[in-house]
Amino acid sequence: MKEKLKIIPLGGLNEIGKNMTVIEYGNDIVVIDCGVAFPDDDMLGVDLVIPDTTYLKRNLNKLRGYVITHGHEDHIGAIPYVLRECNAPIYATRLTCGIIETKLSEHKMPQKVKMNRVRAGDTIKLGCFKIEFIHTNHSIADSVALAITTPLGTILHTGDFKIDLTPVSGEMIDLVRIGELGKKGLLALMSDSTNVERPGYTPSEKIVGKSLEKFIMESDQRIIIATFASNVSRLQQILDIAAKAGRKVAVCGRSMEKISKVSMELGYLKDSGKVMIDISEIKRYARSQLIIVSTGSQGETMSALYRMAYGSHKQVEVNSGDRILIAASAIPGNEKSINNMVNELYKQGAEVIYDRSAAIHVSGHACQEDLKLMLGLCKPKYFIPVHGEYRMLVQHARLAQEMGVNPKNVLITEIGRPVEIGENSARLGNSVPAGRLLVDGLGIGDVGTAVLRDRKHLSEDGLLVIVVTVDATTGVVIAGPDIVSRGFVYVKEAEALMEELRTISQMALDRCSVENLRDWNSLKSAIKGDVSDYLFKKTKRSPMVLPIIMEI
Amino acid sequence: MKEKLKIIPLGGLNEIGKNMTVIEYGNDIVVIDCGVAFPDDDMLGVDLVIPDTTYLKRNLNKLRGYVITHGHEDHIGAIPYVLRECNAPIYATRLTCGIIETKLSEHKMPQKVKMNRVRAGDTIKLGCFKIEFIHTNHSIADSVALAITTPLGTILHTGDFKIDLTPVSGEMIDLVRIGELGKKGLLALMSDSTNVERPGYTPSEKIVGKSLEKFIMESDQRIIIATFASNVSRLQQILDIAAKAGRKVAVCGRSMEKISKVSMELGYLKDSGKVMIDISEIKRYARSQLIIVSTGSQGETMSALYRMAYGSHKQVEVNSGDRILIAASAIPGNEKSINNMVNELYKQGAEVIYDRSAAIHVSGHACQEDLKLMLGLCKPKYFIPVHGEYRMLVQHARLAQEMGVNPKNVLITEIGRPVEIGENSARLGNSVPAGRLLVDGLGIGDVGTAVLRDRKHLSEDGLLVIVVTVDATTGVVIAGPDIVSRGFVYVKEAEALMEELRTISQMALDRCSVENLRDWNSLKSAIKGDVSDYLFKKTKRSPMVLPIIMEI
Repeated sequence: MKEKLKIIPLGGLNEIGKNMTVIEYGNDIVVIDCGVAFPDDDMLGVDLVIPDTTYLKRNLNKLRGYVITHGHEDHIGAIPYVLRECNAPIYATRLTCGIIETKLSEHKMPQKVKMNRVRAGDTIKLGCFKIEFIHTNHSIADSVALAITTPLGTILHTGDFKIDLTPVSGEMIDLVRIGELGKKGLLALMSDSTNVERPGYTPSEKIVGKSLEKFIMESDQRIIIATFASNVSRLQQILDIAAKAGRKVAVCGRSMEKISKVSMELGYLKDSGKVMIDISEIKRYARSQLIIVSTGSQGETMSALYRMAYGSHKQVEVNSGDRILIAASAIPGNEKSINNMVNELYKQGAEVIYDRSAAIHVSGHACQEDLKLMLGLCKPKYFIPVHGEYRMLVQHARLAQEMGVNPKNVLITEIGRPVEIGENSARLGNSVPAGRLLVDGLGIGDVGTAVLRDRKHLSEDGLLVIVVTVDATTGVVIAGPDIVSRGFVYVKEAEALMEELRTISQMALDRCSVENLRDWNSLKSAIKGDVSDYLFKKTKRSPMVLPIIMEI
Repeated sequence: MKEKLKIIPLGGLNEIGKNMTVIEYGNDIVVIDCGVAFPDDDMLGVDLVIPDTTYLKRNLNKLRGYVITHGHEDHIGAIPYVLRECNAPIYATRLTCGIIETKLSEHKMPQKVKMNRVRAGDTIKLGCFKIEFIHTNHSIADSVALAITTPLGTILHTGDFKIDLTPVSGEMIDLVRIGELGKKGLLALMSDSTNVERPGYTPSEKIVGKSLEKFIMESDQRIIIATFASNVSRLQQILDIAAKAGRKVAVCGRSMEKISKVSMELGYLKDSGKVMIDISEIKRYARSQLIIVSTGSQGETMSALYRMAYGSHKQVEVNSGDRILIAASAIPGNEKSINNMVNELYKQGAEVIYDRSAAIHVSGHACQEDLKLMLGLCKPKYFIPVHGEYRMLVQHARLAQEMGVNPKNVLITEIGRPVEIGENSARLGNSVPAGRLLVDGLGIGDVGTAVLRDRKHLSEDGLLVIVVTVDATTGVVIAGPDIVSRGFVYVKEAEALMEELRTISQMALDRCSVENLRDWNSLKSAIKGDVSDYLFKKTKRSPMVLPIIMEI
């Protein structure tokens, strides 16, 4: 009897981000992607979220390598963290490798990881797996889908993709190769669910170029375009338009500078018109001769456009001589920050073009009709929707059924839950450890539920520290109770309240003494209980009450 | 020489919410609306935001009354807070009065405010002002615009409005009366800018009824409809459809129950088909006989639909026998919560209809073409865009210019900044005190910038308390330094780190002793500085460090 093929998502299901999937057969594992997610609102103070890779650590001897679909953070961002403990060679296309290498250098681990550059069309062998890289379209160049041939058949993982019939650079997604694989018979398809809620087709990146051209050509203002740093094709279009318009282009913002540098070095970005200048050179040109391409399309604090909006950017001062194009749509959760930033830009007097009708942004993900085309070409035996929140996975599953996949062969799983494919059937197996590790500063995984709960509590009503010094032998209070508050009320306005709380704490201690309670826990919980109750009654607030007993 | 007419917004400009405007002439003031805003993400722990009414307090002797345009929270929510210090009679239509009275009862101050019911078409006199209430359409019944005749001319304040040619109950907005006023000559128009970014016309509430009817009639599941509690017309349509469909209707969620009760009592809601039942009675009916109308369309924690989604609602357990219609669009900032709630509803197996294409929601605010119609009818001498963020005010100002208002008569102001209208000209005057007061629990205004800054700091990296007991006369350390942390790291995992911090604190104290620094501030800042520096170097985090020195 043959082994089962296991497909184990460690991230990217029921969530957006931290995409990572383990493909396991017998003694071999390959991992598809290794991304980060950005913290939810309730993960206070957290910088990044990475997948829990306990399962991989336990099976290190099987790990043959990582295959990466493209260079976005949610597909590569966790590499510097995960590879510290689960090192293995990485296989990716040239631009993707370039971006990963920049990242590894920043983490001071460039020599520690073996990078292997592949081209779309190449096939590599890792353990029992043969992996073919297939050219796709997405909002970053050099994206690929992966056809992984296993002893039980071939599975296709689309990565993030769209179908762009007129891409700015490179070819249209290799639908022919995907169709050939479908015709030969695909065991399983794992397909991108990000845009499954949107009907119709995703428009080509080219229409963005046309709109940008119109907005640039008709204006004699300085043009500032905020967009995603990694959209190299969009930057290429801007360079081409600038050449036509006789304008210079300066990029602005750390990630924008980083990615344009790598893309230029690797030939993905071509400045044939010699229009690129350094941001420090913009003073030498008239406003009408300039285009600034900047980060900050999501209203991120400290991004270039954000700093321009709030008047704190070193090189760029915004005023009515600026036409600002926000070539992006809001990632859910960023709407308010973007709106606030646009208001500030308006206050500086700038013209801001940001609405959908301006057609200065298109999505990088396939919409419903595109997804149907993918399903129609692949005709997979099994279908596993990936990259999406739960409602999207369900809707993508329905789409697959409409496209003729047998409903019992459509498998919606969750992170840690393996899809186990045998010779004749597939099912969801028993879960393996999976979840999220929170990165906060240099710490990985040392911020967990209890710490977050405390942060939330502190954030809502602040803190009262009540300190008492007690004689260790007699239990007599020698000093205090002293009260310090932060994030609760202005102490000045609450002198009387603080005095009441001192009295209440003292009474709690006296009661303990009468009841002959001497252990610190009893004293602490008496103070905490009495003070909390009183405060809630009096103010309807529940600050964290932290009694500290010093013993001398 | 005549006095100047002053229009002083105390809220609702450069922000969404807490609408409140002072109209002042000579010795008379009337106030239009008195609303709350909901806290921004950075107002940690804050429940509500109300306008700063210092200006009103200083001019209490002039205050003749409040005129209220409609019963939404952002127009009436601050009444219980503001009227404690600035009491004056309230004038509003019947439903608005009903909702305000419920609110006053909850705040245990029902007898303290003099309520006066008016009807659209009525005119009242307050000091030198004559105020006419003009029927409008909005997402709550009984909304009015206000035509305020002053010694210098008449100003029209639209309140929140839309133009609904086929409203569900009541008449179309009284465009004729508005046109008559325009023809006679309006001194100024203050008009709702909420939807100025949207081209075209706002659809009628009736189309929502048609869509809901389709989704209800074609289904044999239980129907759950989440919508805004105050949209009485929508609830009326649901009652009518239920009668046709032979279903019963239960409302669910505190605000929904409250408003439907008031509306029913006042006759704004008519249960002619006797379909309404109490939520406790739903057990008696088959799923196919039920419609539940619930709160939670914004994914608010603890709302009825939220609790159903997370399986914690007492009466309603959601499963595949439910079709859930979310008849609302996301208020910016709520997208993620709504998405998460929809995912949970999907996990319970329910069918959820939430997308724009379903046409189960329309806006209550006028879009561009409607706003032009208002401007065209009013032909005001001065135009003051209100109710909107800065970019909306600017866009509305441009619309007014396109409609023929003299650009120098278009006045964009901000809260606290009066528009001063004289006999021949208008200008922005000197600012008066204005701003926001934060309501947290029972406290009003006792949470300010410093408290919020502390809460933010605590929320991001938590807290370290370092306590030392010192001999008051010799300055010798008697006990400690003891360290307590919250929201920083798991203390268990950081025992070694805590030990290091104790040593560092001790060394800081020793250094002070050598340098003969005895005052508590020097000791505290030495400990704080050394510990913070060390922590940042070691962990790249900056928890709040709180040194406490006890003296005995």
